[in-house]
Amino acid sequence: MARIVKKFGGTSVADIDRIRASAAFVKRAVDEGHEVAVVVSAMSGTTNQLVNWCQEASALHDAREYDTVVAAGEQITVGLMSIVLQSMGIQARSWLGWQIPVKTSDVHGAARIESIDTSDMVRRMGEGQVAVVAGFQGIGPDNRITTLGRGGSDTSAVALAAAMGADRCDIYTDVDGVYTTDPRIVSRARKLGRVTYEEMLEMASLGAKVLQTRSVAMAMTHGVRVQVLSSFDDVPGTLVVNEEEIVEKELVTGLAYSRSDSVVTVYGLPDRPGTVADLFSPLAEADIIVDMIVQSQAPHNDEAEVTFSVPVADLARAKDVLEANRERIGYRAIDTNADVVKLSVVGIGMRSHAGVANTMFRTLADKGINIRAISTSEIKVSALIDSEYTELALRALHTAYGLDADQGSAA
Amino acid sequence: MARIVKKFGGTSVADIDRIRASAAFVKRAVDEGHEVAVVVSAMSGTTNQLVNWCQEASALHDAREYDTVVAAGEQITVGLMSIVLQSMGIQARSWLGWQIPVKTSDVHGAARIESIDTSDMVRRMGEGQVAVVAGFQGIGPDNRITTLGRGGSDTSAVALAAAMGADRCDIYTDVDGVYTTDPRIVSRARKLGRVTYEEMLEMASLGAKVLQTRSVAMAMTHGVRVQVLSSFDDVPGTLVVNEEEIVEKELVTGLAYSRSDSVVTVYGLPDRPGTVADLFSPLAEADIIVDMIVQSQAPHNDEAEVTFSVPVADLARAKDVLEANRERIGYRAIDTNADVVKLSVVGIGMRSHAGVANTMFRTLADKGINIRAISTSEIKVSALIDSEYTELALRALHTAYGLDADQGSAA
Repeated sequence: MARIVKKFGGTSVADIDRIRASAAFVKRAVDEGHEVAVVVSAMSGTTNQLVNWCQEASALHDAREYDTVVAAGEQITVGLMSIVLQSMGIQARSWLGWQIPVKTSDVHGAARIESIDTSDMVRRMGEGQVAVVAGFQGIGPDNRITTLGRGGSDTSAVALAAAMGADRCDIYTDVDGVYTTDPRIVSRARKLGRVTYEEMLEMASLGAKVLQTRSVAMAMTHGVRVQVLSSFDDVPGTLVVNEEEIVEKELVTGLAYSRSDSVVTVYGLPDRPGTVADLFSPLAEADIIVDMIVQSQAPHNDEAEVTFSVPVADLARAKDVLEANRERIGYRAIDTNADVVKLSVVGIGMRSHAGVANTMFRTLADKGINIRAISTSEIKVSALIDSEYTELALRALHTAYGLDADQGSAA
Repeated sequence: MARIVKKFGGTSVADIDRIRASAAFVKRAVDEGHEVAVVVSAMSGTTNQLVNWCQEASALHDAREYDTVVAAGEQITVGLMSIVLQSMGIQARSWLGWQIPVKTSDVHGAARIESIDTSDMVRRMGEGQVAVVAGFQGIGPDNRITTLGRGGSDTSAVALAAAMGADRCDIYTDVDGVYTTDPRIVSRARKLGRVTYEEMLEMASLGAKVLQTRSVAMAMTHGVRVQVLSSFDDVPGTLVVNEEEIVEKELVTGLAYSRSDSVVTVYGLPDRPGTVADLFSPLAEADIIVDMIVQSQAPHNDEAEVTFSVPVADLARAKDVLEANRERIGYRAIDTNADVVKLSVVGIGMRSHAGVANTMFRTLADKGINIRAISTSEIKVSALIDSEYTELALRALHTAYGLDADQGSAA
């Protein structure tokens, strides 16, 4: 007997048939003797409808009222899921954020969970009742409904699992696990059986949007074992666990890519101390996060050149800031490019092995792909390249790191 | 300065444009210096969608979960109405049933309001904040959401007005008041400026479905002055008040009609004491409410004949009950007819005047309309006739009682 939290996202509860299919996974776990809590999102489409209504009501809307409106989405799903479970002969009851309660900070629209009182719920689960919990919502210190922000249902599920000491948190979605890379691009991508929190964090924040970054960080902090799996196919998913639970550590676990970066090149900077500080200070003051930085010297004069990446959403603002500070910085020209992609090679095993970055550079060079910038962390190497090479680069790297699925075996 | 509750039904908040139009009525009252609480229904269509989902989830659904699902409808509207009011520069905040709280009985799906704590709300209204309250919902002793049953938003509004000692409760709907009879049938129907609670109760329960019966009864009990008016047209509505507030008492105030009755005739009953008891006991045991009863003697033998009305929804069951008890009752034959209509003449003034019933009988007879059954109360005379005569009868009675609008004046 285990205690399991199962979370179903919007596409897994999109209509009554989908709710019924998801409920079948719950029933199986109950029949196996487990204590089960279910966390649900709003039916897919519902949240968008509610958000659109708020926008239509007023572009600048009170976040407390916005939360009241959008939290109705999950409220609808918990009731319907409970009714469906009951129709299958399973004891079930719904729990709204304020009923549990899930106490949060007062930052409406992006609240943080502060505490979850699961005592009553756990007692009822011990008596065989399935708890059906509205994800994404809580109650603030002002006794009003708060929401955790978009995608917050994953966080709700992991926080609930941590609060009730669950043995596992199953996140059901419309993909059946975490892959070595995007299978839509690399047909030989393999599903991973296990992945560490750290790897998952790097994968998630870099664009492999299977799990919300925040929920992975929370799972890591509280040691919650998370399983990502599909509510559409009844196949094993991917377990996200501690490094200790992974026996065979791969050098490289996966390849992520992200189109959310853009690149800025600043030409003709004076070659004197303080130039780089003059360049980046105004950007920092404008809260623009600079990620990768490459500095180079022009060969035949004393001008320096700096290339760096900023989030594509901040590119226009970054350009404005630089132009406003042209005198202070003293550059000759700037050039921007949003048509770039960041490729990242992720693997817990690279901590103890050299050569991972080198394989990347050689593989890309062999295909004639120019690297605009590079950054590395303990378990990751990232390179910024022109986005037209994305597919070519991902396939070449997938083969180079030995990630391709065996031709003979199923993915 | 007055304290006013304004309630907007589903068609008055059907979309953001309608919410904006309804909010304009609130703004005007605020600008005039009044303290305003707004009660809203779900956007029209939303409740049906939510109810359909519950039905689809399971024909037999847990009423507590049903309440959780459908209460989301009003939750959405309070948030949107608050946002719209704020965009007009009005301070506003939403209140859900559990936040106020509106404490109810535990009969989910048809709960009764037990208490409403308006202290915090009234304090804020005194500071200029409009309270936007979710109608139809409350919280039960089990800390779960309850609903008052279909149409319960009127009751929420009247109960709130009573709890906060409001000077008036405005019920905005898609008709602009209470008419002497249905204007779709009688073009010369007049809008009433005032009507008493008692008359309104008779009109509402008889089919003039402008206000829910339950809300009128509650308004009468607590002496809440109710105004029925349109959110589509900016014209005065109808005030529902105490008899004392009506100076000129009309003999007849209005004509109502209802198609919810059906008629049963039982032939060949033994002419002996106890026959009628034998006939109606099994119906009473089956919880079938018998309204009008006519007993007659066949002229040339000792057989009796009884005609009575039952709700059309119970007709099939009534027939089954009578057939199952044929031996005990000892009748020869039964005949049923669902194709009947109940016409009612309503007026507080008829308490002190005779002749109202006689005018009805004579008018219908003049048009060759047969009366199948009659019932009367202190302020009402009802007649059951074949439904094909509905329009003819209503127009003739409307003229006979002097209710027709003056040809020269606006309705």
